[in-house]
Amino acid sequence: MTFTDLRSDTVTKPGPAMRAAMAAAEVGDDVYAEDPTVRALEEYVADLFGQPFALFTPTGVMANQLAVRLTVPAGGELVLDADAHIVAHEDGAASAQGGVQTRTTLSPRGLLDPADLARLIRVGNPYTVGTDLVAVEQTHNRGGGSVYPLERLTAIRELVSGYGLPLHCDGARIWNAHVATGTPLRGYGALFDSLSVCLSKGLGAPAGSVLMMPAEYEAEARRMRHRMGGGMRQAGILAAGGRYALEHHVERLAEDHEHARELAVLLRDAGFAVADPETNIVLVELGERQPDAAAIAERCRADGVLVSAFGPRLVRLVTHMDVDAAGCARAATAIARAAKG
Amino acid sequence: MTFTDLRSDTVTKPGPAMRAAMAAAEVGDDVYAEDPTVRALEEYVADLFGQPFALFTPTGVMANQLAVRLTVPAGGELVLDADAHIVAHEDGAASAQGGVQTRTTLSPRGLLDPADLARLIRVGNPYTVGTDLVAVEQTHNRGGGSVYPLERLTAIRELVSGYGLPLHCDGARIWNAHVATGTPLRGYGALFDSLSVCLSKGLGAPAGSVLMMPAEYEAEARRMRHRMGGGMRQAGILAAGGRYALEHHVERLAEDHEHARELAVLLRDAGFAVADPETNIVLVELGERQPDAAAIAERCRADGVLVSAFGPRLVRLVTHMDVDAAGCARAATAIARAAKG
Amino acid sequence: MTFTDLRSDTVTKPGPAMRAAMAAAEVGDDVYAEDPTVRALEEYVADLFGQPFALFTPTGVMANQLAVRLTVPAGGELVLDADAHIVAHEDGAASAQGGVQTRTTLSPRGLLDPADLARLIRVGNPYTVGTDLVAVEQTHNRGGGSVYPLERLTAIRELVSGYGLPLHCDGARIWNAHVATGTPLRGYGALFDSLSVCLSKGLGAPAGSVLMMPAEYEAEARRMRHRMGGGMRQAGILAAGGRYALEHHVERLAEDHEHARELAVLLRDAGFAVADPETNIVLVELGERQPDAAAIAERCRADGVLVSAFGPRLVRLVTHMDVDAAGCARAATAIARAAKG
Amino acid sequence: MTFTDLRSDTVTKPGPAMRAAMAAAEVGDDVYAEDPTVRALEEYVADLFGQPFALFTPTGVMANQLAVRLTVPAGGELVLDADAHIVAHEDGAASAQGGVQTRTTLSPRGLLDPADLARLIRVGNPYTVGTDLVAVEQTHNRGGGSVYPLERLTAIRELVSGYGLPLHCDGARIWNAHVATGTPLRGYGALFDSLSVCLSKGLGAPAGSVLMMPAEYEAEARRMRHRMGGGMRQAGILAAGGRYALEHHVERLAEDHEHARELAVLLRDAGFAVADPETNIVLVELGERQPDAAAIAERCRADGVLVSAFGPRLVRLVTHMDVDAAGCARAATAIARAAKG
Ligand SMILES: [Ca+2]
Ligand SMILES: [Ca+2]
Ligand SMILES: [Ca+2]
Ligand SMILES: [Ca+2]
Ligand SMILES: [Ca+2]
Ligand SMILES: [Ca+2]
Repeated sequence: MTFTDLRSDTVTKPGPAMRAAMAAAEVGDDVYAEDPTVRALEEYVADLFGQPFALFTPTGVMANQLAVRLTVPAGGELVLDADAHIVAHEDGAASAQGGVQTRTTLSPRGLLDPADLARLIRVGNPYTVGTDLVAVEQTHNRGGGSVYPLERLTAIRELVSGYGLPLHCDGARIWNAHVATGTPLRGYGALFDSLSVCLSKGLGAPAGSVLMMPAEYEAEARRMRHRMGGGMRQAGILAAGGRYALEHHVERLAEDHEHARELAVLLRDAGFAVADPETNIVLVELGERQPDAAAIAERCRADGVLVSAFGPRLVRLVTHMDVDAAGCARAATAIARAAKG
Repeated sequence: MTFTDLRSDTVTKPGPAMRAAMAAAEVGDDVYAEDPTVRALEEYVADLFGQPFALFTPTGVMANQLAVRLTVPAGGELVLDADAHIVAHEDGAASAQGGVQTRTTLSPRGLLDPADLARLIRVGNPYTVGTDLVAVEQTHNRGGGSVYPLERLTAIRELVSGYGLPLHCDGARIWNAHVATGTPLRGYGALFDSLSVCLSKGLGAPAGSVLMMPAEYEAEARRMRHRMGGGMRQAGILAAGGRYALEHHVERLAEDHEHARELAVLLRDAGFAVADPETNIVLVELGERQPDAAAIAERCRADGVLVSAFGPRLVRLVTHMDVDAAGCARAATAIARAAKG
Repeated sequence: MTFTDLRSDTVTKPGPAMRAAMAAAEVGDDVYAEDPTVRALEEYVADLFGQPFALFTPTGVMANQLAVRLTVPAGGELVLDADAHIVAHEDGAASAQGGVQTRTTLSPRGLLDPADLARLIRVGNPYTVGTDLVAVEQTHNRGGGSVYPLERLTAIRELVSGYGLPLHCDGARIWNAHVATGTPLRGYGALFDSLSVCLSKGLGAPAGSVLMMPAEYEAEARRMRHRMGGGMRQAGILAAGGRYALEHHVERLAEDHEHARELAVLLRDAGFAVADPETNIVLVELGERQPDAAAIAERCRADGVLVSAFGPRLVRLVTHMDVDAAGCARAATAIARAAKG
Repeated sequence: MTFTDLRSDTVTKPGPAMRAAMAAAEVGDDVYAEDPTVRALEEYVADLFGQPFALFTPTGVMANQLAVRLTVPAGGELVLDADAHIVAHEDGAASAQGGVQTRTTLSPRGLLDPADLARLIRVGNPYTVGTDLVAVEQTHNRGGGSVYPLERLTAIRELVSGYGLPLHCDGARIWNAHVATGTPLRGYGALFDSLSVCLSKGLGAPAGSVLMMPAEYEAEARRMRHRMGGGMRQAGILAAGGRYALEHHVERLAEDHEHARELAVLLRDAGFAVADPETNIVLVELGERQPDAAAIAERCRADGVLVSAFGPRLVRLVTHMDVDAAGCARAATAIARAAKG
């Protein structure tokens, strides 16, 4: 059976042109910072966002965790929303490996409200833990691919700067926000002290993320990347795939967004509670009379459609370059059938 | 100058009878679990709350941290309110030393709402961090000595049990809740899987807390206490002070509550925004036109009155056995004078 | 049954005069650094060793761990001997709570050889972990109360200084080295960047150690002590016991050393392999034909004598102020009987 | 200038056939364990060593660290030699991220002596840290590519089994030991509970290692790999390179060993102290009258030859598939010239 896979945009696979680019990549030993294709990718991405320094990492988890751990000492505090990828899907790494305390609040669609943030941030003193870093996620995965409006981000930036604190963006899917809103990448880049972006989700590269940070962190970032097990040698093979993705697959994310909207319409027509997708993620909230998410996912799989059980009664579908409109229609049909049992 | 010290109820000092009890204590080596006075105190406290096992610790931080670390693995998650002592005043210990991820939400007066809690708790799977422990604080320090009504605690207990999770209570000042509400200690004890109580705050012992947990944790709790540096030898000296405090200083907390109410009236009369104190803590919110908390604290000190700057515009006063009604009046006067500049 | 307890000198109990001193102690809140008896003890001990700053801690584990963690970052390295208390009896705390890597070598009687130390210390670079701290133990517990000769310590100091590294001394029983060799405490104090000393072993106080370090660590040391759960409030009660011990129980350690020598003679006469004790610890190596250490300890206990099984075939006896010559004779007899089975 | 690069065998680059294999690789999402090329590589490697389970990782550091952290709890102990890669070149990761205590001893050529090991291993009890894991390194990097004889490994295995403990092998260069000694890979595989092997050193793949462990660790290993940031998506691209390397580049390591021997002869002829290389690593110990290692490395670089300063007076040269006999001769000449200054 051929599967229509909407579990995540991570499942995207490299096509022939990207593969050719990887096969032709000039490489070196990136632990010695001598892989020319990696270095070129890092400079290319830094330039896209107007950031001073970039470092290639095997995964987005590593990119986020490097930003957090380089900025927050053990026993220090990271403030973010309670549904952020960093606290939901990174295995507690910031705390487990870096000793970082996370402090969060529940926020609609995962988007922090500046007023809540003002209540969360704390100035440290000898008897009180102070906040060391604030993080936002753009677009927000668990929020359903939700997008922070630029004004909200700007307000957060000002608030955070008022405390003299750095602001991190988990921008794994910032490309989707850029395409959905038209905000230039440099417009986002100017707001953050550190920023991680992913090459292997909607962009379709096989692996790799890029972390941007102030340049003074370079030595420590390379060291920490090595400690975490991310010091790959001839990483230019992967970097070449990422570069190809950046040059060819950003603008086409608009198609994924279009597919997501179509999928939402089909699902709503079939009687499901589905919010308007802002980008490429569709969340389906299951009612009390419907099967739970795990059952839906299992039945859809039997029908050739893969979706994620994202909560007991929450199904997530993610559109991407390897699924077309017909695939979305197939998925909507399968879910409707699954819900009927 | 003699100071009226309302910074905290931790400043309470042992009187002659408590000192005599300590001097007469039979002792042994508590690392070998052979100090009879410590053992007796542990059994006494466990019995007060109807809990199966108790362990003496040098401090409340250690008691809370033991409960968290024995229950939550590194990379696991503790859910609690965003102003809890555990995330505000324990130096990030759960994360820094135990690798525990904390996930929180802002709550009025620090008291978790069961509906919010239901949104916070997460069932883990291979791709998602699951919650391992939920904690409440009774009374709530940063919430202004606020008290969870028994029904709210019962609802939280049911919710948490529905997920098969344990519930911890930071009960440093649970004595105040008991006295203020009349809820029996065993009524509280029945609700929690683990519970820490403090002997050196309102109760007036020089040092020490007691942690209660399921008895199967005993060996690991002793080990972890030793690792944290809490394996004191002839600790019976301190335990004797705690025992005296428990036998003589619980009911008198009602006086502290009365003093707090009087202090609040005086401060309100003087034009300050002060909520009705539920127990022995009075929080004064300073207006934009008033000096900030640090300035108030500094001026009061010059006037012989010690208070805590608990936030940029928040002053905390805590009543206790070493301050009488006259002391409270003196404090109210000093604060009023300080606010005028 | 009355026990003769030679398991450790930690079992020493406070007598009437020490208890009276504790009962009379003036106290304050030591988390605010306001306990006068604690402050006086800290200054007294710092002065004894000619060190700039001292901090009272509940236990020796906490004192050592503070020194290590304040000096070595997570991922940094502590070099010491393979049988040091820090790696044998502190529950892996430096690594578990501070992320510190320990690197060791086996050394006769636990005393590091400068030539081995030179091979162990490593200068860090981007690809190699460098050493951050070296530690010695004086006297050495698992080495059998062995004493570093001053010349050896001086050679180690010079070697370590040549690398620009700090040197820590776990001086839990440095009093015994001082009394055994006549080396002034300031002679030891001058050699170390940080130094922990214990009040509750041979000196007989109920609890407490003192850490000495450069004064610039004070704020961080208080913070870390609080994080570890060592921020006791009216700790002056314990500090008064420690002060009494320092003023009355140092020189008498010579008696314990004499008792250890007598015990060794008795045990050798009874056919055991026993090295000459240098201070107050006697190690008995059991032969293949003798019962193992656990069996010896169990049989002695039935005979009213408590000893430690310190390894599968190693028994440790520690003399102290609560055991006299008759007690030592009783112990020798019990061990001989136990070995016969 | 074209460089002759003997800094490490990590600098090896993929050739056309390996690149073609990578470009043609069938891929899937390896976080979902669905990448067929990764799965096939894992099975292939597990079969080579007769091990039950294998997991692909981006780097050897991650493979080693997974083995350590899955086997040793925080506060537990790993015993190994003092020059092991795990404590020299992995940035303290076991301690920093896993809270693991390392205990080591100095060993000639990095090869543990069973008698020393017997003294290092400790059985835990409530007051003593016990050993949880023993590790060896085959071949040993800092030992100069030294090879454990099979009998020594077998003796260590028996000793370790006697304590009921697992034995890990850092087998980054176990291929070299296999080729140098003729010991079958399964002969090694049978000795270890866990084993990491590297594809990107002498074998010439661009990146990747493989960890073998008991199959019951699979779920936790995947989780921990994700937490460390090693959950790459379409990792089959890299796995295809590793598979090609395994099928084509193992036996040719004999050439590297031959080159190392030739290099050693040339260097000895030029007056340097050089031990007989056992595999592909040549260590040059510089005398007091010669320039130090950093100076040698710098001068060689100016001469087009890259070598590693491996200690203040220690130079390391590593032969590999991208350097031929002429390159080795060039290197020997450059070093001789550099030493003359
Ligand atoms: Ca992909
Ligand atoms: Ca840590
Ligand atoms: Ca940890
Ligand atoms: Ca008190
Ligand atoms: Ca004692
Ligand atoms: Ca390579």
